[in-house]
Formats: sequence, C-alpha cells, structure tokens
Amino acid sequence: MTLVIALGGNAIVRAGERGTAAEQLAALRDTFAVLAPLVREGAVVITHGNGPQVGNELLRQERAADEVPPLPLWLAVAQTQGEIGALIESELAPVAERAVVCLLTHVRVDAGDTAFEEPTKPIGPFYGDDQAKTLERERGWQLVEDAGRGFRRVVPSPAPLEIVEVDAIRALVASGAIAVACGGGGIPVTSRNGKLKGIDAVIDKDRASALLARQLGATRLLILTEVPAVYRAFGTESAEELRELTAEQAAGLLPELPPGSMRPKVEAAIDLARAGGETLITSMEALTDALAGRAGTRVSR
Amino acid sequence: MTLVIALGGNAIVRAGERGTAAEQLAALRDTFAVLAPLVREGAVVITHGNGPQVGNELLRQERAADEVPPLPLWLAVAQTQGEIGALIESELAPVAERAVVCLLTHVRVDAGDTAFEEPTKPIGPFYGDDQAKTLERERGWQLVEDAGRGFRRVVPSPAPLEIVEVDAIRALVASGAIAVACGGGGIPVTSRNGKLKGIDAVIDKDRASALLARQLGATRLLILTEVPAVYRAFGTESAEELRELTAEQAAGLLPELPPGSMRPKVEAAIDLARAGGETLITSMEALTDALAGRAGTRVSR
Repeated sequence: MTLVIALGGNAIVRAGERGTAAEQLAALRDTFAVLAPLVREGAVVITHGNGPQVGNELLRQERAADEVPPLPLWLAVAQTQGEIGALIESELAPVAERAVVCLLTHVRVDAGDTAFEEPTKPIGPFYGDDQAKTLERERGWQLVEDAGRGFRRVVPSPAPLEIVEVDAIRALVASGAIAVACGGGGIPVTSRNGKLKGIDAVIDKDRASALLARQLGATRLLILTEVPAVYRAFGTESAEELRELTAEQAAGLLPELPPGSMRPKVEAAIDLARAGGETLITSMEALTDALAGRAGTRVSR
Repeated sequence: MTLVIALGGNAIVRAGERGTAAEQLAALRDTFAVLAPLVREGAVVITHGNGPQVGNELLRQERAADEVPPLPLWLAVAQTQGEIGALIESELAPVAERAVVCLLTHVRVDAGDTAFEEPTKPIGPFYGDDQAKTLERERGWQLVEDAGRGFRRVVPSPAPLEIVEVDAIRALVASGAIAVACGGGGIPVTSRNGKLKGIDAVIDKDRASALLARQLGATRLLILTEVPAVYRAFGTESAEELRELTAEQAAGLLPELPPGSMRPKVEAAIDLARAGGETLITSMEALTDALAGRAGTRVSR
C-alpha cells in the first residue's frame, strides 16, 4: 500500500524567500523532520510543485535570450524536476535512512483537452506592452494583462491522463527506494502515432499525484498545503473545518472552493476516493494531529 | 550483460549549433537511428555529456542574477540532467520500442581529491577583469584568464568513486527499461557523516560511465566521440589507427593523448578493462564498421 506525499510550494520555498539553494535545503530539512515517521518504512513516493523554481527558470531563459536559446516550457519543467529532485534527495535520504531516487516524469495529456482552447495558468515573468506583442507574434504565446504589473504568459492546464513512467516508479518502490516523481505535475506530453511529444502546458501537481496514486494502486495520498484542513465558508465568520468527507460530499463543496488553490486538491481527492483510495489534506504544522485524526480533512469513498 | 552507451557532445548538439530544443531533438533522432540495433533488446544504459547545455544554463543564471538567485553548479548539472533526459526520452523511446527512464544521478567524489587543490576545468561564460574580481571575492570562485576572451571560472574535476543510484539503475534495467543516467558525469557529491552534499565540480562523463559499467558488472562500454578510433601520433603524418589495445598497451599510450579529450576516454577504458570489461571507442559514422570489427578501438584486459 503505497503512500504518495505531495509537497506544497511552502515545503520547499518559504513565503518571502527567493529560492537560493541554501534556503530550499533549509526548508526541506524542516519538512522532512516533520515527515520522518512517514518515510522510514513502507512504499513511499514523493511528488512536489515547482511554481517558484519554474518562474525563476523562465526568467533566466528570457534574460539570456539574446545569447543562448530559451528552452520551451516543457523542458523548463524537466530542468526543475532535476533541480528540486537533487535538493529533495540531499535532505530526505539521511532522514529516510534508505535510497531516494528521482525519476524524470512525463504525464500524458489529451491534445484535444478543452484547456488548450482557453489557456488560464499565468507563468513566467511580466512583460511590457511592446514586448508582449513581439512574443505573441514570434513565439505564438498568449499573454494577458495583469492589472498594473504588465503582461504575463498564460498556458493551458489540461487534465493528466497517464503517468508515463509508472512502471519504473513501481519497480523502484518495490526495490525499497523512495521515488521522487511527478515534479511540477510532470512534463506534459501528447501522444501521436505512439510517439510522445513535449507540449507547453502546466499540469496541476495534486491532480497528477492522485492519478499516480491510482495507477500505483495506492490507497493513501497526503497533500501538504498551507492550511490545516478544507473549510466550508473559508474566510468568513462561519468558517468550519471539515474533518471527513465522502467523495460525494466533497463534490458538492467544489463550487465554493477557490479555483487554483483548494479546489484542485479536493478534485484530486475525489478522483482517488472514487477509485477506492483515501486522501488527507493538511498542513505541515497540523500533520501530527491530522495523522491522529484530530486535524486535517480526509476524503474517502 | 549490460551495455553502457556514453553519448558524446555531438550526439546531442552538433558543431555550430546553439542548442535549441528543435536542434537537439533532430541531432538525437539521427543518433538513435544509428544506435537502433543496439537499443532494441538487452540491458542498456545511456549516459551523456552536458557541456553546451550546462554552459548555456550557467550563462542564464548570470544574466538573471540581479533578479533571481543563481544556483550552484551542482544544481545546474541536475537541471541539465532533466533537460537532456527529457530530450533523450522523446527520441529514444520510439526507436527502442520500450520504456526509457531518466534517473537523476549523483556521483560521490573524495573531498580530499587533489583535483580540489588545483581546479582546471573551465566552465560557464567569460567575464571582464572587474567582474572576475567581484566573483572571486563574493562567491569564492577561481577564475583564469583566457587569452583575449576574458576570465572564466575553473572548477575541479575529481575522480568518480561511486554511482550513488546504482541499485536503482540496476532495478530499472532489470524491469526491462532503458535507463538514462550519469548525465554530465553525474551530480558531484561528497559524503560527510553519511550525508551527501552537492559540491561544485565537474566529473568526466566517460570516467563516470566506466565506473557505472563496473558497478553494474557490465562487460561492455561504448564511447561515442568525434573521431572513429584512438590514434597513435594523431595529427601527424604517421598517424595510425589502433584497432585493439590491452589495458597495459593503452596505459603506455596515455602520455601522448590530448588531456581533456581522448585521454580521459582511454583512462576510462583502462579502468573497465582492468575490471574485466571491454570498451569500444568510435564515432557515430564508423559505428556499423566498428561493431563488425573493421573500425574503432577496442580496449580489453
């Protein structure tokens, strides 16, 4: 029974930090100190986001664009899987007291996914008006104006259909190692005539983690985020922490959850619950209580 | 009997190209068309260099340094393992007709290696005089002047001692997948109190590949490079292509081979030959003839 642990952004880059190697290593040290009891035995896969890191990398690509060719977004995602994988291996291996191995992970999406018709996920640096027009013309990007800050590229966020390397992840976990996989939601690829092709998009890392858990036959997914639980009426006076939800109850809650934040996490949990698995959504601070059933939100069938 | 194939720089970025994603994919397509008969069955591991890619990445880091923190070299190596691994998976999987999986690979070196006393490997962009002094002061780098082109950072190139992820590579290969590993010679790490720590250095990718072959009990290493064979008196009128060498003959040849080019390849071949393995050094163009014993240089015990 594999446990998939999805690390949120603040597990790697703390709020207000810029993402130096030393800062990321220190944040991960704290993260794995908390996770220690969960990673010392059993089948464990770690997944993680890459928001700050891919933002930094895309900015680097732009600033050097006159001298060295910028890479497409799917390769920038691959770069961050390498970067963050190496950071995680450094700090997790001594805590887990066993091998930690990062696999480059591709996630297949459908080229016909409606997400490609209307890109919504903002990514990378801000640009001025003229520059935005040039990028639209020369690279075929779509950019949207962000009030007062300039223009920013938006990319599609299609649904993950298949973790390409799932057999390898299973083999690694069976060998006793902890696998680090699906970084940044995975490198998005479409399939054509049996050949996989990288595509510029961003896959939600919690949706990809739930898919991975399902493909591995894992019954447990732990989503670590910034809040201790899922709330009803979050941010209002009548806010109420939810301790246990069925897939159906969770689905009923979706419309009131914030889109790019708690909603995809609960959607991921619903996907897994319908396949017979259980998801625990909580924060690093509340984890110990959540494991004892006194905090966090559990979603199951 | 695992076959380790070490791809040279021109297998991924052709001479005169800048390293766009499209150029790298096209070069790899040609490479794997030639390698097709070798990768369709049996246990295969692909290793590769990262010279142009890590050079590009270090330049990106510098150009954006005022806005986002530059990462240390060992993490830039990790980034290129992600980038090149994703490119290789794209082009190799359809040719090999089986799973291709890239593992982030760390290689342990000795912090006491004499290479750390005198860094010799130039890396990254050129800097002006003032900038060089600032980098020496602020980042503790060593820089050397390159006649007419400015100052360039030099880093140590220590001997590889252990492929950290070798068990995982073995498990993956046993599962039937082709593993992509040791990119750029591996992410250099030193060990202290059982904890591995990234360190700024560059490990020769052929030495790392020979070590991997030894650790895997592999008896065959194929080093692909720009020349069809090892030569005696290379570049002179009496140049002579060498077809077969014992480890001892190869060792006798070392002093006349060019340092950062053919010498480390022959050193790698000697290491493996002494452990009972065989290395074939040849070019992509001469590969078919070399496999039939009509070209290339074989080094064995």
